Amino acid sequence: MSMNTPNEIKKYQKRINSLLDRAVPPSNNNARLNDAMRYAVMSGGKRIRPLLIYSSGLCFDIQLNKLDIPAVSIELLHAFSLVHDDLPSMDDDDLRRGLPTTHKKFSEATAILAADALQTLSFELIANSESLDDYEKIKLVSLIAKACGSSGMTGGQSIDLASEGKTLSKSELHEMHAMKTGALIHASIMAPFCMMNNPNQDIQTMMSEFAWTLGLAFQIRDDLLDIEQPSEVIGKTANSDIKNNKATWPAIFGVKESHSYCDKLLKKCIQHLEYFDHKADTLRWLTNYLINRKH
Amino acid sequence: MSMNTPNEIKKYQKRINSLLDRAVPPSNNNARLNDAMRYAVMSGGKRIRPLLIYSSGLCFDIQLNKLDIPAVSIELLHAFSLVHDDLPSMDDDDLRRGLPTTHKKFSEATAILAADALQTLSFELIANSESLDDYEKIKLVSLIAKACGSSGMTGGQSIDLASEGKTLSKSELHEMHAMKTGALIHASIMAPFCMMNNPNQDIQTMMSEFAWTLGLAFQIRDDLLDIEQPSEVIGKTANSDIKNNKATWPAIFGVKESHSYCDKLLKKCIQHLEYFDHKADTLRWLTNYLINRKH
Repeated sequence: MSMNTPNEIKKYQKRINSLLDRAVPPSNNNARLNDAMRYAVMSGGKRIRPLLIYSSGLCFDIQLNKLDIPAVSIELLHAFSLVHDDLPSMDDDDLRRGLPTTHKKFSEATAILAADALQTLSFELIANSESLDDYEKIKLVSLIAKACGSSGMTGGQSIDLASEGKTLSKSELHEMHAMKTGALIHASIMAPFCMMNNPNQDIQTMMSEFAWTLGLAFQIRDDLLDIEQPSEVIGKTANSDIKNNKATWPAIFGVKESHSYCDKLLKKCIQHLEYFDHKADTLRWLTNYLINRKH
Repeated sequence: MSMNTPNEIKKYQKRINSLLDRAVPPSNNNARLNDAMRYAVMSGGKRIRPLLIYSSGLCFDIQLNKLDIPAVSIELLHAFSLVHDDLPSMDDDDLRRGLPTTHKKFSEATAILAADALQTLSFELIANSESLDDYEKIKLVSLIAKACGSSGMTGGQSIDLASEGKTLSKSELHEMHAMKTGALIHASIMAPFCMMNNPNQDIQTMMSEFAWTLGLAFQIRDDLLDIEQPSEVIGKTANSDIKNNKATWPAIFGVKESHSYCDKLLKKCIQHLEYFDHKADTLRWLTNYLINRKH
């Protein structure tokens, strides 16, 4: 999980992994469902969305313990989406984070149900949290559910599948990416606003624009890695987008154009963060890392 | 959808169908996801869980508009579970409510995603409700999520699949049914307690016992119908439990024993409701109907 990280990031990764370990139900005899849930969540992963939540929280001096449950909750939703996206009827991927995908390790039925239960757990943990008040919890459920549902991540995956073999316009591709990947990244960065009373509207708008820009750049980088790096480096089957005839930025606009667009988006991201000065140091480091990463 | 119903029940069915119609996103060009969501929710169904919520609410004089969102939310979770249970990798059913199952009508991928989005929508609607306060919403999310997740409905389905071809003990079968079917029926009947301040603990315990008893009887009746009625009557493929070698009450303890156990459970249910006198008239009618139904 090395990201050549500064200590701050390493500390948060350790924190979220320990929280996730406690959040997912322990192994038992229950038809291997819990084992599959643990496997889907605890088999590596950079914990990008939790890191974004903690780093965004630093910009607003939000207490760390207020951010733990949003971080766990969003990472569980991310894990749920990966398990379903990898299924034979969807992207049909055998490899994830260098390991067999959940349906390969267990069975298709168990993978579907384990991911279903991870989605439920995500909302259950928010409701039962002892660090958040009811008002904060409800704002979080609303934010996260909108990002996850038919107008967000799940809707984006559906458009992605329907777009296989098609050439999308720039705005169609934009919308698909915003829904599929952008929505959950956006929710991560915006989660700290659920713990603020009367946040400044201009700052909220600026952070929202930062989040959508980062989400788009993150997805384009991901699609570039799929083409440019071997399976051993990215931990999943390389060239799977090409195999599946996916509508991606590099496939439609070319690799060179995608690289320069990524650079442009990175500059925009950094501009959006200027206002926060030193408070955004961790978020700035993370933004640079995510848009320039090599795996 | 005729249940030879009294007017009260018909009124609630009409109410919930209209609420569901407004809750599920409209048809659009979005990769048929919304169409599949609508299909899964709006293609018939007796709306048993919403009816239980409204009827249970009558026992405690809860305002109808406070029960609408819990009713919609639980029915969406029920619809989500049916779509996933019917998938080829699970029960592999082609027919539901006399129509092709969602994966047959659309595709496997679309069915999986549509059900995922229905689960999300269920929690989103609670969070965004204007008829409930934050405290009520959080109690509801907690109640419903517990009933739906790995220790409830989804966990029960996982045990059910793992039990195919096995002979379970009475207590194992009991637990599986309590999780798979009982949990959501229990949550429906207990939902009105989320809108009460300091409910009487004895009454809450009594209602909870009623709910678990009804849930068990309901499942045994369902398994009897699978054996005793043709597909045209039950609206799904008859004898599918036998085909899938399912661990059911009639398969393990015999049809005659199952019938007499159902009768015993019905008597217990009616006893639990005595305290409520006339306020439980609708719930009593519904209980009789559910345990004696012919389809």
